Amino acid sequence: MPVYLTKRVRFCAGHRLHNPQFSDEENREIFGPCSNPNGHGHNYELFVTVQGDPDPDTGMVLNIYRLSRILQTEILDELDHKNLNTDVPWLHGVIPTMENVAFGVWERLERVLPKDMLHEIRLCESENNSVTYRGKTNA
Amino acid sequence: MPVYLTKRVRFCAGHRLHNPQFSDEENREIFGPCSNPNGHGHNYELFVTVQGDPDPDTGMVLNIYRLSRILQTEILDELDHKNLNTDVPWLHGVIPTMENVAFGVWERLERVLPKDMLHEIRLCESENNSVTYRGKTNA
Amino acid sequence: MPVYLTKRVRFCAGHRLHNPQFSDEENREIFGPCSNPNGHGHNYELFVTVQGDPDPDTGMVLNIYRLSRILQTEILDELDHKNLNTDVPWLHGVIPTMENVAFGVWERLERVLPKDMLHEIRLCESENNSVTYRGKTNA
Amino acid sequence: MPVYLTKRVRFCAGHRLHNPQFSDEENREIFGPCSNPNGHGHNYELFVTVQGDPDPDTGMVLNIYRLSRILQTEILDELDHKNLNTDVPWLHGVIPTMENVAFGVWERLERVLPKDMLHEIRLCESENNSVTYRGKTNA
Amino acid sequence: MPVYLTKRVRFCAGHRLHNPQFSDEENREIFGPCSNPNGHGHNYELFVTVQGDPDPDTGMVLNIYRLSRILQTEILDELDHKNLNTDVPWLHGVIPTMENVAFGVWERLERVLPKDMLHEIRLCESENNSVTYRGKTNA
Amino acid sequence: MPVYLTKRVRFCAGHRLHNPQFSDEENREIFGPCSNPNGHGHNYELFVTVQGDPDPDTGMVLNIYRLSRILQTEILDELDHKNLNTDVPWLHGVIPTMENVAFGVWERLERVLPKDMLHEIRLCESENNSVTYRGKTNA
Repeated sequence: MPVYLTKRVRFCAGHRLHNPQFSDEENREIFGPCSNPNGHGHNYELFVTVQGDPDPDTGMVLNIYRLSRILQTEILDELDHKNLNTDVPWLHGVIPTMENVAFGVWERLERVLPKDMLHEIRLCESENNSVTYRGKTNA
Repeated sequence: MPVYLTKRVRFCAGHRLHNPQFSDEENREIFGPCSNPNGHGHNYELFVTVQGDPDPDTGMVLNIYRLSRILQTEILDELDHKNLNTDVPWLHGVIPTMENVAFGVWERLERVLPKDMLHEIRLCESENNSVTYRGKTNA
Repeated sequence: MPVYLTKRVRFCAGHRLHNPQFSDEENREIFGPCSNPNGHGHNYELFVTVQGDPDPDTGMVLNIYRLSRILQTEILDELDHKNLNTDVPWLHGVIPTMENVAFGVWERLERVLPKDMLHEIRLCESENNSVTYRGKTNA
Repeated sequence: MPVYLTKRVRFCAGHRLHNPQFSDEENREIFGPCSNPNGHGHNYELFVTVQGDPDPDTGMVLNIYRLSRILQTEILDELDHKNLNTDVPWLHGVIPTMENVAFGVWERLERVLPKDMLHEIRLCESENNSVTYRGKTNA
Repeated sequence: MPVYLTKRVRFCAGHRLHNPQFSDEENREIFGPCSNPNGHGHNYELFVTVQGDPDPDTGMVLNIYRLSRILQTEILDELDHKNLNTDVPWLHGVIPTMENVAFGVWERLERVLPKDMLHEIRLCESENNSVTYRGKTNA
Repeated sequence: MPVYLTKRVRFCAGHRLHNPQFSDEENREIFGPCSNPNGHGHNYELFVTVQGDPDPDTGMVLNIYRLSRILQTEILDELDHKNLNTDVPWLHGVIPTMENVAFGVWERLERVLPKDMLHEIRLCESENNSVTYRGKTNA
């Protein structure tokens, strides 16, 4: 009887959607105002869901303070108040759409969380737009 | 490794819950204040989720501007500032509960979105009430 | 040292913005989609603020359960799941804009609340639109 | 073609996370500020999801007024304005983490809802923390 | 040309509304479920507003990091994950209604903020209930 | 009996807080992570409040569609998906704190709105931080 525990964290970051292999006109056509050369930015919300049976001694799937510390060092220290195109080594060479940022976040979290515990991440760049990802095997 | 991309749109509409085959008393018993003869209304939120592998050239499951245009013409132009009982041809003869409106929305979107891309819709008529639908095969 | 105590209540209602002295074309030009003949509707939020010195025995400006009962009988029983154009005697003959509904709400509340206690009402018809009113002497 | 109908209810409650088999120091290390001896509390949100085919006569998976009454008697009358450690018989002897409260809520609702209708519950103790549970067979 | 800068902080706390000079029955009549002997709790939101002319060198009314540190030590370290009836020296002997907690918060902040800068505090104990206070001279 | 009508609009933008007259170390000390050289960004919310007596023929302080068009051309076309440090002529040479952006927004709106109608603007750069401004004479 797995339970799913979800923690939200927030970060603000700048980004620009732009594929250097496209012409300026193609970039504007595909990415619209998101291709603005000087970039723009968002208040991102990230919801991270882990799954498992609660530990009978603590009643928690994963100690929520431990989860907070992991999200601080793996995600917030990396992304908060940063430019996603230039300041984040693990996003270099990637168009920082919500989809691609989610892939990067998943990989970082999967490395450090107990095996098979990471279930889903949801990344929202506004109250209207979000993506959800469950990795290669959970989908 | 599918990713799920969700876009929210909002519309306000009037409706009345009423089955003409029931007596007035039965309608009041079943639908409560929602059966008020002159109708009432809501600010609806619709969350539409599409799934797929992101296009490697754009980093997007589906171009989010294209998705916005589809939601504008298929849903908002049809439902926003309308009376769901009388103004929407594809809801005629249907009791406009969240469930039935969701069926109608699903069918309209499935017709125009790339095959197998529509994954889930969530329709909220208030901060307390919502329905989720994944079509006949995804559920 | 007055304190301001605010209580939120919610109601859903239908309405139509339409001035019978205008032509159909003028109504469409002025009220846009809000003039749709069959109406539409909203989830309204009403924030009611009363002011005063807290009662030293209770620590409350006004007993919050008493305020809830007043809002139930004076506002929610009158407006919730109603059509603002046809179902509310104290709004008859009035174009039910947020401004005009706020005037009506203010008058009803001022009659029943302790003298000089009503300070402000805020009526929101969506996350984007609201009005605030403080009566004829407070503004 | 099942539809999922979700209703949100809110309750405020006090609690303390503490395992009497641990030393005070262990409790502080594991539960952090949540182990404060005199307790603290939250505004909880509970989202209850039922599934099924809508009744063709009403257009509803489950009559939403009936669902509201069930949530009132089974959950809100039990938990709202209560201390989860001391006031709730069906939580006695349990560390009232979100996970454990969710188990208790699930069992109460499963007993009274039509068979196989309960699909998922989500319990949020803040805008940052929540759990989701789907019972022993749905997960 | 003063500008008003507002910072929100959140804390969760337990409390009980109860006047020892009233009988149990009077307490229940006045404070309703809030008088539950074992207490309950809330996720509180506190909005603190300071006013002034922005410093031309920084463009800020008050350095927002400095304001955050003040709110951490003066408010969050004192109230977060605490029982407002028993754990907070500056609330001893006070019925911890929103009104009375707001008075205490105002006094603490006025002591440490630059003179005449504190303009308003708003304390919300739920999405429905809040108080606003502007001190003895600003109201 | 003035009524206050408020409209919310949203825009996302990038910015960096940095005073070129300060050393890098001073900038980091004053602006913290907001001084990140490659910038970051936010989803901004802007609430614009106009005041007046409702027009008896329309029931509106100011036609809300007209207000929307003004906010589109004066604010959103200028700020949405832009970099506030480099892309906005009327913010050149200004440190784009919330306070300074609010001054610029006020001046643009005051020029085009009917005389004495603009009452207040509120600019939020996150759920935690906002400023309010009422011009030189209203404050």
